[in-house]
Amino acid sequence: MSATDGGGAVAVLHTVAEVRAWREEQRSQGRTVGFVPTMGALHAGHLGLVAAAGEETDAVLVSIFVNPAQFAPHEDLDRYPRTLADDVRKLAATGRAVTVFAPAVSEMYPRGISTTVAAQRGTFVEVRGLSEPLEGGTRPHFFRGVATVVAKLFHIAGADVAFFGQKDVQQCCVLRAMVDDLFFPLAIRVVPTARDPDSGLALSSRNVYLTAEQRARAPAFYRGLCRARDLFASGVVARDELLAAVRDEAAQAQLDIEYVCLSSPDDLAEVQEVGPGGAILSGAWRMGSTRLIDNILLGFEL
Amino acid sequence: MSATDGGGAVAVLHTVAEVRAWREEQRSQGRTVGFVPTMGALHAGHLGLVAAAGEETDAVLVSIFVNPAQFAPHEDLDRYPRTLADDVRKLAATGRAVTVFAPAVSEMYPRGISTTVAAQRGTFVEVRGLSEPLEGGTRPHFFRGVATVVAKLFHIAGADVAFFGQKDVQQCCVLRAMVDDLFFPLAIRVVPTARDPDSGLALSSRNVYLTAEQRARAPAFYRGLCRARDLFASGVVARDELLAAVRDEAAQAQLDIEYVCLSSPDDLAEVQEVGPGGAILSGAWRMGSTRLIDNILLGFEL
Repeated sequence: MSATDGGGAVAVLHTVAEVRAWREEQRSQGRTVGFVPTMGALHAGHLGLVAAAGEETDAVLVSIFVNPAQFAPHEDLDRYPRTLADDVRKLAATGRAVTVFAPAVSEMYPRGISTTVAAQRGTFVEVRGLSEPLEGGTRPHFFRGVATVVAKLFHIAGADVAFFGQKDVQQCCVLRAMVDDLFFPLAIRVVPTARDPDSGLALSSRNVYLTAEQRARAPAFYRGLCRARDLFASGVVARDELLAAVRDEAAQAQLDIEYVCLSSPDDLAEVQEVGPGGAILSGAWRMGSTRLIDNILLGFEL
Repeated sequence: MSATDGGGAVAVLHTVAEVRAWREEQRSQGRTVGFVPTMGALHAGHLGLVAAAGEETDAVLVSIFVNPAQFAPHEDLDRYPRTLADDVRKLAATGRAVTVFAPAVSEMYPRGISTTVAAQRGTFVEVRGLSEPLEGGTRPHFFRGVATVVAKLFHIAGADVAFFGQKDVQQCCVLRAMVDDLFFPLAIRVVPTARDPDSGLALSSRNVYLTAEQRARAPAFYRGLCRARDLFASGVVARDELLAAVRDEAAQAQLDIEYVCLSSPDDLAEVQEVGPGGAILSGAWRMGSTRLIDNILLGFEL
């Protein structure tokens, strides 16, 4: 499959062997490779990552793979949007030469993969400590699945630089730690969260699940984050005051908050105030059966 | 530190940055790299791995690192032999140009490392299934520590081929699975076990712990393995008969057997007979506070 709408040539590779041959070709031409791992259902946030990769590296590889290992049996693996043809068209429309790696599950997990952790066999990567708070609280399997598939993809892509969105801030911290701890020979860049220009709602592939009514209420969480950011700018560092601002906005929109936390960027442990190294203010909320997350960084950058 | 006894030039590197610079130099000259990870206390078995690496690749890197993560708190981390100067002399005496990577623990584990698994923080690699039987039975922490440090070393070395000894047969299986599952871009070679030419005792850095009396009894295990191999050559495939041969020889030498198993090469599960794909006959025994292992392959090669 390939597409050239809008002038960008998009080649779609499906096997590890094809990607390795492509990577070898780039290497032989002295071209650096930027890598953007995604689960598809591409939106402007993903395209921003592709743009950042295109700015920094010579050749851009985008993986599109809905990774079973990061879903729990009760989560939305089956209904997660899979829109490869649309995704390829969106990438082509950027006008950039991009290569897509869209493997089958059997290509990434030749021995098969269960979403039940106890039934899993084979190699898994876990980042102890950083994986446990925040998202790890309700999704204990999640970062193990993410770290494992990203380790696989890093080895397949052989990239020089990999690009991730700040929206998944804990994922960024976990993967940075994985790269540092295991000495992966690549750099990670974190790109600021892309937002709906009108409401500020963080772009997410899961936003398509929202009803119009939910979509109208969802931006309240980010309004709360912005109020907290304003408080911090005015000198407030206390956790309780910052969280209250978020919770107040969320309550006005009747958001079903799962958690709001102020966390240390070092170990993601809860902190009582924003310290000299800054802090992450993040949270998750539910709208019907959909679960959304968002965050801001206070006093530091990733 | 460097040594040139016997004509082989041995450069000793201590930091990840030094190895990366060395690797880049090899790459720029189009040289392939062979990698031999060791815990030092080098014997003829290790030198055989270095020779195999020298035959197959252009430049050989030997790591010497006693990895705390693969020891349990009650094991012999503290008394494990550390003989870097001797090791470098032995490598120099081979006459081969070899580069040694001898990092400090703080270089490999900048956040520190506890031998207590529950206290560990950071990134770990586990190979579920293959890590659990055999050695994993008495050393549940072991292959997690091995897989983790080898993943680090593979990323640091950037090697094309890595060489391991068959004596640690389960380690070979676990690391092959890790390389396959995570798509590490390198090949693994398994080199036959080096043995004392007179007694057949498998060479091991832990043999130095043995008293003269223990050293005299230790070869009985391999004699048992050889009896089992002869039985297999004569058509015997039944587990019970093969194990009885090993246990009989071991009993005659009053070896304190921990286990003897006939295992499938696919998943290391116990099998009742040697199947069409062959089987591994392996075991562990204790002599005082020293624990030794050995194995043979029946009907297949690694």
